[in-house]
Amino acid sequence: MSNETLIKSTDQTSRGDVESIDGKGDASGTNDPNRHFDVHQNSKKYYDIEKSPKSMEQVHEWQRQHIQTHDQGKEGYPLNVIVDPAMREMYQHVHAQGLTNVFDRFEQQERIRCNFCSSGLSCQLCANGPCRINAKTPRGNCGVDADVMVARNFVYRHVTIGTSANIFHAQQAARTLKAAAEKPESGLRIRDKEKLLKYAEMAGLDSHEDVSRVAINFANWVLEDMGRPYWEESSMTKAFAPPKRQELWRKLKLFPGGGFSEIALAQTKCMTNLNADPVDFLLTSVRLGIANEYQGLFALDILQEILMGTQKIRTAKQNMGLLDKNMVNIISNGHMPLTAHVVIELASTPEWQEKARKAGATGLQILGHVCEGQQLLNYEDTGKMSAYGGQEGEWLSEEYLFATGAVDLFMFDYNCTIPTLPLYAKRFGTTMVSTHEVIRMPDTQVVEFKPEEMRTQAAKILDMAIEAYSKRKAENREVYIPPHVSNCMIGFSTESVKAALGGSWKPLIDAIVEGKIRGIATIVGCTTARYGQGGSNIFRITKGLIEKDILVLSGGCTSSVMQYTGLADPSAAEEAGPGLKAVCKALGIPPVLSYGACVDIGKMTQTAKEIADALDVDTNMLPIVIGAPEYLEQKAVADACTAIALGWLVHVAPVPSVTGSDLVVKTLTETTETLGLGKLTVETNADKTVQIYVDHIEKKRKELGI
Amino acid sequence: MSNETLIKSTDQTSRGDVESIDGKGDASGTNDPNRHFDVHQNSKKYYDIEKSPKSMEQVHEWQRQHIQTHDQGKEGYPLNVIVDPAMREMYQHVHAQGLTNVFDRFEQQERIRCNFCSSGLSCQLCANGPCRINAKTPRGNCGVDADVMVARNFVYRHVTIGTSANIFHAQQAARTLKAAAEKPESGLRIRDKEKLLKYAEMAGLDSHEDVSRVAINFANWVLEDMGRPYWEESSMTKAFAPPKRQELWRKLKLFPGGGFSEIALAQTKCMTNLNADPVDFLLTSVRLGIANEYQGLFALDILQEILMGTQKIRTAKQNMGLLDKNMVNIISNGHMPLTAHVVIELASTPEWQEKARKAGATGLQILGHVCEGQQLLNYEDTGKMSAYGGQEGEWLSEEYLFATGAVDLFMFDYNCTIPTLPLYAKRFGTTMVSTHEVIRMPDTQVVEFKPEEMRTQAAKILDMAIEAYSKRKAENREVYIPPHVSNCMIGFSTESVKAALGGSWKPLIDAIVEGKIRGIATIVGCTTARYGQGGSNIFRITKGLIEKDILVLSGGCTSSVMQYTGLADPSAAEEAGPGLKAVCKALGIPPVLSYGACVDIGKMTQTAKEIADALDVDTNMLPIVIGAPEYLEQKAVADACTAIALGWLVHVAPVPSVTGSDLVVKTLTETTETLGLGKLTVETNADKTVQIYVDHIEKKRKELGI
Repeated sequence: MSNETLIKSTDQTSRGDVESIDGKGDASGTNDPNRHFDVHQNSKKYYDIEKSPKSMEQVHEWQRQHIQTHDQGKEGYPLNVIVDPAMREMYQHVHAQGLTNVFDRFEQQERIRCNFCSSGLSCQLCANGPCRINAKTPRGNCGVDADVMVARNFVYRHVTIGTSANIFHAQQAARTLKAAAEKPESGLRIRDKEKLLKYAEMAGLDSHEDVSRVAINFANWVLEDMGRPYWEESSMTKAFAPPKRQELWRKLKLFPGGGFSEIALAQTKCMTNLNADPVDFLLTSVRLGIANEYQGLFALDILQEILMGTQKIRTAKQNMGLLDKNMVNIISNGHMPLTAHVVIELASTPEWQEKARKAGATGLQILGHVCEGQQLLNYEDTGKMSAYGGQEGEWLSEEYLFATGAVDLFMFDYNCTIPTLPLYAKRFGTTMVSTHEVIRMPDTQVVEFKPEEMRTQAAKILDMAIEAYSKRKAENREVYIPPHVSNCMIGFSTESVKAALGGSWKPLIDAIVEGKIRGIATIVGCTTARYGQGGSNIFRITKGLIEKDILVLSGGCTSSVMQYTGLADPSAAEEAGPGLKAVCKALGIPPVLSYGACVDIGKMTQTAKEIADALDVDTNMLPIVIGAPEYLEQKAVADACTAIALGWLVHVAPVPSVTGSDLVVKTLTETTETLGLGKLTVETNADKTVQIYVDHIEKKRKELGI
Repeated sequence: MSNETLIKSTDQTSRGDVESIDGKGDASGTNDPNRHFDVHQNSKKYYDIEKSPKSMEQVHEWQRQHIQTHDQGKEGYPLNVIVDPAMREMYQHVHAQGLTNVFDRFEQQERIRCNFCSSGLSCQLCANGPCRINAKTPRGNCGVDADVMVARNFVYRHVTIGTSANIFHAQQAARTLKAAAEKPESGLRIRDKEKLLKYAEMAGLDSHEDVSRVAINFANWVLEDMGRPYWEESSMTKAFAPPKRQELWRKLKLFPGGGFSEIALAQTKCMTNLNADPVDFLLTSVRLGIANEYQGLFALDILQEILMGTQKIRTAKQNMGLLDKNMVNIISNGHMPLTAHVVIELASTPEWQEKARKAGATGLQILGHVCEGQQLLNYEDTGKMSAYGGQEGEWLSEEYLFATGAVDLFMFDYNCTIPTLPLYAKRFGTTMVSTHEVIRMPDTQVVEFKPEEMRTQAAKILDMAIEAYSKRKAENREVYIPPHVSNCMIGFSTESVKAALGGSWKPLIDAIVEGKIRGIATIVGCTTARYGQGGSNIFRITKGLIEKDILVLSGGCTSSVMQYTGLADPSAAEEAGPGLKAVCKALGIPPVLSYGACVDIGKMTQTAKEIADALDVDTNMLPIVIGAPEYLEQKAVADACTAIALGWLVHVAPVPSVTGSDLVVKTLTETTETLGLGKLTVETNADKTVQIYVDHIEKKRKELGI
């Protein structure tokens, strides 16, 4: 069926379906015939589905031309910002059907935004409120001023939630390692024994015991550290953080104790009529950033690598074209691929492939989505399993992915499963399964997270997927899969990069010293639906950076952007500046090294730590910038606090909701650096952003005397 | 100096001082001469300072007439709502000077309230936002609908913060017990050994060891439980919660694990694109309510009683008239009276009184404010110390208290220290000292919380207070102390009430069965600055309840209201219905039993548990209502969740910010009860509120067959 036919056929059912998918009337506003017409005008103007490029090369060429147009504003939105070819097609299908979707909702919300909320000058904490602050009304009812209100909002709306989430994730990984050691038949097992022993030794544990025993002791050590009171120094931080940083953190009273107690302390400070020192709030955020790293990101990364195998560099494929109409298609979504790993392992057995064939499919495949997928893609032992089908896209594409009609089962375990998916599941015949108690959605199934019974739980999910496929087949349901697939290189991490360099950081350091590589930028985090963003900002900035011989590491939905734009493919070396290009070509790697997910940031900090150690400098001396050019949510904010703690310049866009306080802005963008910490910088223009990175890296080079 | 003189003298400096106290221009709007005039009109109309009643009897008579006027609206605000005579006077002084203050700020905020925020339909979590929901725009950018947005806001803005705070408080108390046992010379020591041994036994610890050892083990047991992962059942809950409730909680999957891990789990659920089940959010709140009780309120209560002596019933005095111009006046504020207890103990020594006399004072006294004060008032061994001066008022009166000019030092440790106090401190010559790292304010001193060095820290504070007094004396600074003091009976708790009943619950149960007492209402929590509130709502409801033979227990700023209205004095028995009056007179107690602070709610639940045990029924069978008729902040919301977990009807006013979702409202006000839990009821009219309590109590009596 042609795209045109699909659009026409779905057009006919538009009005009624808006109601049924939302239940709240016409959310998307497409009942307005003029608006509807506009859409088609837009699609003609910006990207003609019928004439859309089909080959990967054509797509990548179009993308490079497109981002030169500098027309990222309201006019022509969202097709002027979306650069993922699959999402572009599917957006048009969804929009034409009048279905509520993330880009259309952005436009609707733009009309009713609140400037108080945008600038952090609105407080909803107590029953005397809500309160707002402006020039005529400079204090909330309790007496809170703009500085305290903005700083407090920053802590409890963003930092404590993000830190909670990352430590929670590491806690689940520790729990799973313990279960794997105690019950190796449960589905997960110790795959990187060497890594376990190395870190157990660093933890001061006896690494000469039986491996299962070491794993249990290590998991307990991690769990105990998280549960420690805030006034007792965190063992994980002491064991794993750069020693020079530890000294500074002690001096600044930022050395964290147990992460959960730290979070409760910070939350307590946010109570009405409690802490009223804006700088204390911001330093509390930095302290949480340290817990976020060593009890969160870093901990979960090593724990998961022990369970699923440390990354090795290899090539892979990404995008919706990997869906196969004739297969049972499972999408695993979220950020915690523990159950998913066992699902893939089980599905890779002939027994389960045979079950799928008996149901009339040619087989059964599991594809990853968002950061869950980036992890599945990367982990050595997951990526090489036969039922693993590759990576889908970024979080913005979820509704569009469902609209293909090809997703039989969508399992989700944690963040980045958007609230409208049950509506799409109902309409497009997808079975949705929550695999962790942390996430529940109405009208979806549950297969509970049981680390001691992973295999049993995985089998339930596979049965449900085959049943959903059978139903799709029986009902002969419409499927449209956009034909786009990109090649990419994946599996970069501290160990694999070092191995690629011949087992030493020296070649990389030499390249930096010689100026072939000027420095390193991480482009991490999410994508947003905002004007100028939607993946475009990430793409433009990254292009600009590699052209300036800056090596880019990606993690998060940014990795998907790198993949669908071809920047994570070795052929992209041609687009880099001469120095970086030469290095990439010599090593056969792309100028953007995908470290995987946003939760893989702990691996990047470890790489940076090892490079700093090799140079015998503190981490804040490195020619490095941390960028989150389309950051979305609370973990990204906590991660930014981590980077500030480690002494790095952190670029974020869009503008965070702190502009209501000059003091808060100044503290985060200037003062913290004077303490030996890093600092924040905010810039929404891609070209200016590149220049900020370049300037900072050159400044750091100068300070290093190179 | 007469009141009139003070008003006149301060009036002259009005304009300039507004600037200096706020630094942000005319916050109070009093530069408008008409407005200024209005104020004096108001003060003439509602309460003539010059003719204000001076004797306690006159005040109480005026209060009773005043609340009959039913004129609690905008007109005449705030003097139509304030019933505390001291606050009435001082409000007028402060307002006349054009100083920013809590009641005037309420009026200013009323003009710029946001209806989206008021109803919970505004979200500021992610960078695609802020988003708002209305009929035309039924979803946020991510796709979140009204139900999820409202429920999620409820959890992360209120419940997790409140639960964090109460568990944090218990954590500090456990830490202090440990320090007291390890270093008895530090200032705090084990004062209720019997209680320690009783609860250590319930915890399954060996109570036959050395008492210090038992204390250390008990403190460690508490701290370990807080640090437990959420999936391991909380030991404190197992040891102390009613067994029938425990069964229900297990069945409903509400049995909590370690409190801090529970908070992090709940916070994680609140991330963008994570949990999207509104009912799950609300049940998560109930689960947190259980942790809030057994790892928070209940735990901190027994720990503090062990350290400061379990309450005994006695009489005491309350209000600003207790300040003495010629003494060194220290106010201890907050909710965690650990350092304050040692300050009072030290100040009670002849050595320190002598130091104060040497500075020209007649002595040195420490008065308590808000819930810190209610606790100091109640604890057996604190209340009887000679330097303890009595209780000041509720949180709303803080700015007005400072304006007396008589507060030499204001020490604060935790919540309910309002953000404008440093401005008042500067203007009225008060030294402000933070005694805990959880609360910092610009331009104030710090004497850090060090449980191992309490005595040293206390001495520093006393020195600072004497220095501040000397400065006040040297500068001959103006002081005006409103002459109001109320008598009250205090020291009610599970043990003291039972002792007053002759060591058994039978007399109380008999009185309930016979109908002399129809039931019990707790009137707990804060006061608000809202129309119809400011203490008035608490006063009117309590009057109504005791007239209907309902025994009232108070805890929080409500206790201050009971004290300044005379309802906590045994003479108030005359105002009760005939049955309750007879019981009160026979026992010599008032119809309102002050259990102390909001954090003493754990003692009330324990009383209820013991009564339920004596009746051999589950807690939800009791003829009891939990009321928070002027709730303000996050701990109050968490406490409401505790009450719902225990099966009780919880009345709150003002209206919480959940009205944007019918589902959330229905779940909290109806559905939870069908599960065997309690439920919420919202009512802002005092007369209707009384009827709701009466109806519920009569319904419960019927179900009990009495």
